[in-house]
Amino acid sequence: MKFVVLKFGGTSLVDVDLREKAANKIIAAKEEGHMPVVVVSAIGRKGDPYATDTLINLVSQSYRELPNREMDLLMSCGEIISGIIMVAALQSMGHPAVLLTGAQAGIITDNKYSEARILKVQPQKVTKFAQEGYIVVVAGFQGVTEDGDITTLGRGGSDTTAAALGVALNAVCVDIYTDVEGIMTADPRIVKEAKALDVITYDEICHLAHEGAKVVHPRAVEIAMQKGIPLRVRSTFTDSPGTLVTTSGEAYKGTIDITRDRIITGITYISGIAQFKVGIGTGIEGLKQQRRVFRALALAGISIDFINLLPEFVLFTVLDNVADKTVKVLENTGYVPEMITGCAKVSAVGAGMSGVPGVIADIVEALTKEDIQILQCNDSHTTVWVLVRREDMEKAVIALHRQFKLGQ
Amino acid sequence: MKFVVLKFGGTSLVDVDLREKAANKIIAAKEEGHMPVVVVSAIGRKGDPYATDTLINLVSQSYRELPNREMDLLMSCGEIISGIIMVAALQSMGHPAVLLTGAQAGIITDNKYSEARILKVQPQKVTKFAQEGYIVVVAGFQGVTEDGDITTLGRGGSDTTAAALGVALNAVCVDIYTDVEGIMTADPRIVKEAKALDVITYDEICHLAHEGAKVVHPRAVEIAMQKGIPLRVRSTFTDSPGTLVTTSGEAYKGTIDITRDRIITGITYISGIAQFKVGIGTGIEGLKQQRRVFRALALAGISIDFINLLPEFVLFTVLDNVADKTVKVLENTGYVPEMITGCAKVSAVGAGMSGVPGVIADIVEALTKEDIQILQCNDSHTTVWVLVRREDMEKAVIALHRQFKLGQ
Repeated sequence: MKFVVLKFGGTSLVDVDLREKAANKIIAAKEEGHMPVVVVSAIGRKGDPYATDTLINLVSQSYRELPNREMDLLMSCGEIISGIIMVAALQSMGHPAVLLTGAQAGIITDNKYSEARILKVQPQKVTKFAQEGYIVVVAGFQGVTEDGDITTLGRGGSDTTAAALGVALNAVCVDIYTDVEGIMTADPRIVKEAKALDVITYDEICHLAHEGAKVVHPRAVEIAMQKGIPLRVRSTFTDSPGTLVTTSGEAYKGTIDITRDRIITGITYISGIAQFKVGIGTGIEGLKQQRRVFRALALAGISIDFINLLPEFVLFTVLDNVADKTVKVLENTGYVPEMITGCAKVSAVGAGMSGVPGVIADIVEALTKEDIQILQCNDSHTTVWVLVRREDMEKAVIALHRQFKLGQ
Repeated sequence: MKFVVLKFGGTSLVDVDLREKAANKIIAAKEEGHMPVVVVSAIGRKGDPYATDTLINLVSQSYRELPNREMDLLMSCGEIISGIIMVAALQSMGHPAVLLTGAQAGIITDNKYSEARILKVQPQKVTKFAQEGYIVVVAGFQGVTEDGDITTLGRGGSDTTAAALGVALNAVCVDIYTDVEGIMTADPRIVKEAKALDVITYDEICHLAHEGAKVVHPRAVEIAMQKGIPLRVRSTFTDSPGTLVTTSGEAYKGTIDITRDRIITGITYISGIAQFKVGIGTGIEGLKQQRRVFRALALAGISIDFINLLPEFVLFTVLDNVADKTVKVLENTGYVPEMITGCAKVSAVGAGMSGVPGVIADIVEALTKEDIQILQCNDSHTTVWVLVRREDMEKAVIALHRQFKLGQ
């Protein structure tokens, strides 16, 4: 049996039109002679699985305390409900379908509730129903321990379910369906010329994901790649081939290696950031003060980023929503910080930039040409980060995208 | 370990106050040295499990077709959600609790989706968590097949879950909590003097349930009684002992047999009924016509009740909502029926009335004294049914309750 795994996010299920488009992709796969296995996320569960969920609101209205085990059990209902809706859609289009929970699909995990890891997959029930002619829909994001307790997989969970099922079923491919054409060189809402990458490496995906791009979860890619199952990110709305995820630096099944010479993969951004500048004096005293500042922030549980240690002062960023708390902690420790809230971090990501001269020069040139003030700039082997004011963010993304000719 | 099983309906969970009252019952059982095991129904799922459920509305908005297997899986989320809420309530009151799904609690059923029967109970997980000091909450109304498919138990399902767990755990008792004092002699909203029965037999429960009284489900009683586990119907709001369900005609563990001499157990009612009178002529021709009438109704799928065959005509009732259809069917078959819509069936139920003379005479006397017109009257060994106009219903229930001194 030639399985293909198709994963749809909750946004693909919110109305009848979208569901029909998703169902058509599934039916097309069936009519090409494949056995489609469908993985769905909960409706209204986006990046953060706990953000928008009505089930969680239901309980948290009254109670703050809920054990992780029960939270996972509650959360698992979200994917069951959206899976049922997908089954109903397929049935109404004349294609018999069944829903399997993560447990029924044999997704066996450890017992780290809310971020469980898949230990193995026992897909006998998937195979059985598929052999009987059903389209099998699997509730993503969830599994079960060897003891029979229901778990959830945390961020990117449904992608991971799809990849793990792809491996267990030795699928022809795992297709992650989304509302854009694939993995994009930049957010198409900001950059009109943004285009889908034909091929992307695992490394590049990890870096893009880390810098705020909405791509497939790295864990899912890792699982699929270990067993050589092709994984693609594709659009529910078009027939374009989407972005193929491949191993680093190697041509995949005859595809020309277009990633080898690529300096920059994409431009990403994260807004809602506040920059802090704290004077610390010079010399040995300055080093002591540095330690005091960072220890005070660590004790207060404030996560900091974009750290620059300079002779007279330190620079760092925090998320806007902890800016006030950060000011208080610093003042209580005896400092008078300077703060700029409403900043954004714009990143140029590319595994290929390592050892290539002139990348930072290009970036600085592109931004200054547009009169964008660079508040801070750091770099690593694979990424250049620039801190700008929020109002300059879109302009900066567009300028960098153009500078590296990503739309061509 | 001495287990007690406490079952709460969805109405016990709708607000914080009610949940706290329910939780207090559970905590009291724990503090008396018992191991409480709690069974819950879904919020908003009353008599008819499919009537008020928001989950079902969610899907049926768009699709009419949903396989029974998937319908059961969807329904099962209802009890999981209310179970989670109960766990949250117990935790917030300082008592560690866990939720088990029907499958996790080992409720093994056949695969008759939507009305599955429990085949066996494997409560190892219940016992394990109880031994670890948790209050175990079990999602009622659901089970799992040997193949791992989720099923629901149909009407009275959560009562049945409670009884089956009581048997499997060899519980001290199974307490079905409700919003009244126990099984009542009549609906207390109609009859002020209505009181809770101290003891009731299985037979009496079956008859009361059949005549529209909201009592514990007969199937649950049957399961508990077969293994001699005491089952009580009690109030969440008071400390009264409630109604003990016992075997027919026998004293239960030293309780005086107050049921032996009881002629009437309770007065029940069902409204929304239409009476039909169809002229059929006399003699052999009349018998032929009878057959024609009933065959036509049967072919049209109309369920009839309260049938009286008389020399010149037949009398029967249907539910008000099929009255118009019934008229059409009869007219199409060549009859001109007389119809009275807006009737109610009032029943005096009592296993003890068998062979007792004068019961019907008492009933007729009680009703005529109140100027209530008796449209029809039937009787069996255990029940007398009276058809009255809807506007006379409350008066009739009160009159019969008084006639048989049920409030004393």
